[in-house]
Amino acid sequence: MPTQHIVQSYDEELKKLSTLIVQMGGIAESQLAGAVEAVVKRDSDLAGEIVQSDAKIDAIRNQVDDLAIELLARRQPMANDLRLIVSALRISSEIERIGDYAANVAKRSVALNQAPMVRPVHAVPRMAAMVQALIKDVLDAYITGDAAKADAVRDRDEEVDELYTSLFRELLTYMMEDPRSITACTHLLFIAKNIERIGDHATNVAELIHYTVKGEMPAEDRPKGDDTAYAIVAAPGGKQ
Amino acid sequence: MPTQHIVQSYDEELKKLSTLIVQMGGIAESQLAGAVEAVVKRDSDLAGEIVQSDAKIDAIRNQVDDLAIELLARRQPMANDLRLIVSALRISSEIERIGDYAANVAKRSVALNQAPMVRPVHAVPRMAAMVQALIKDVLDAYITGDAAKADAVRDRDEEVDELYTSLFRELLTYMMEDPRSITACTHLLFIAKNIERIGDHATNVAELIHYTVKGEMPAEDRPKGDDTAYAIVAAPGGKQ
Repeated sequence: MPTQHIVQSYDEELKKLSTLIVQMGGIAESQLAGAVEAVVKRDSDLAGEIVQSDAKIDAIRNQVDDLAIELLARRQPMANDLRLIVSALRISSEIERIGDYAANVAKRSVALNQAPMVRPVHAVPRMAAMVQALIKDVLDAYITGDAAKADAVRDRDEEVDELYTSLFRELLTYMMEDPRSITACTHLLFIAKNIERIGDHATNVAELIHYTVKGEMPAEDRPKGDDTAYAIVAAPGGKQ
Repeated sequence: MPTQHIVQSYDEELKKLSTLIVQMGGIAESQLAGAVEAVVKRDSDLAGEIVQSDAKIDAIRNQVDDLAIELLARRQPMANDLRLIVSALRISSEIERIGDYAANVAKRSVALNQAPMVRPVHAVPRMAAMVQALIKDVLDAYITGDAAKADAVRDRDEEVDELYTSLFRELLTYMMEDPRSITACTHLLFIAKNIERIGDHATNVAELIHYTVKGEMPAEDRPKGDDTAYAIVAAPGGKQ
């Protein structure tokens, strides 16, 4: 059968789709780890590598999307398979965004390295570790099709938001105390925001896993802990 | 024929999908306009309304997604129709994100109103006007299926990024000159970033229109003008 090597079974194609998603997620996770290492170790060369590597994620995203659309056209999937394929399209977009934010963290670390070290940087690896665990667990939930595990990831995102809010306040206070730190602290603010957003995207993936497994999106509103949009931090002198 | 009123033709269903997208986009555009008005007029009541109204966009997004998935299952579309439906799923996600950013601008304006007015706020409506024009034009391109118009939107996003970069620098300088303005300027930084991100999402929609019409994503990399990630702004005293 000469076609044996080119014609894959439907199951194999669906498996291929999942494998690509997991591969993409694994790279995104290590991109975040690398970006945070670049921040902590003030390693601009590593930061440059991370920025370059973002193209790898984009390439796999294109593969996922091409395969998903091909499967929609060729296999005309129904029910579970349709959800799986539509979710793959969406999950690939979420993971691509995670990669973009990791690359942005790396970019900003280069700017950060040109200014003296500022103390609040210590909170970044802690926040990143929480978010990396979310990515890891959401990928596990994806592999095993475990909706309960996905739901747990969604709940844990609140802790990330709380840590972000406290870092936001700390950075504002630090800038007020030492205006020479403003450039560095502003980059740190955006680095922290990027990591918080990665947590949101991991949570979006968790919701899509719930949808794939259960056939509907999780019901209640996601817990929201990032209230920095409303945050007012008084200047040390007391006057705003 | 008793089924006449409930069975829609395939064409009508596709048209319904486009109508929902355009409706969603129109609301997102006016949400941004309202959020910026709340910033400029320091109107916290208006800001509250904008935050509330975000649910309208989310509701239409759910309608789009449900209809798109139903069409994939029931009509088993091929070629052009398949691209149209897959793009609708993605465009709805982009517009939802635009709505989220507009709501975030509104939220931050509430915090901004609790601090004295800072001068750089003047740049926000200018940036927002550019981005609103992008949203309007990309929706026009969607309605008319005009890939050239969509490509033009994509090119214009660079101007938004340039304005954002200059505002970023202005805000940092302002904070250094007057540390009491740090909280207000930080919220303005994020407001500007939100608007810049809305421009990115409008650009993503433009690319999806190009894909829908032409059958492939635009070839060359999108022009990138936001280089604030690398921006260093020296303190007035000259020392970083």
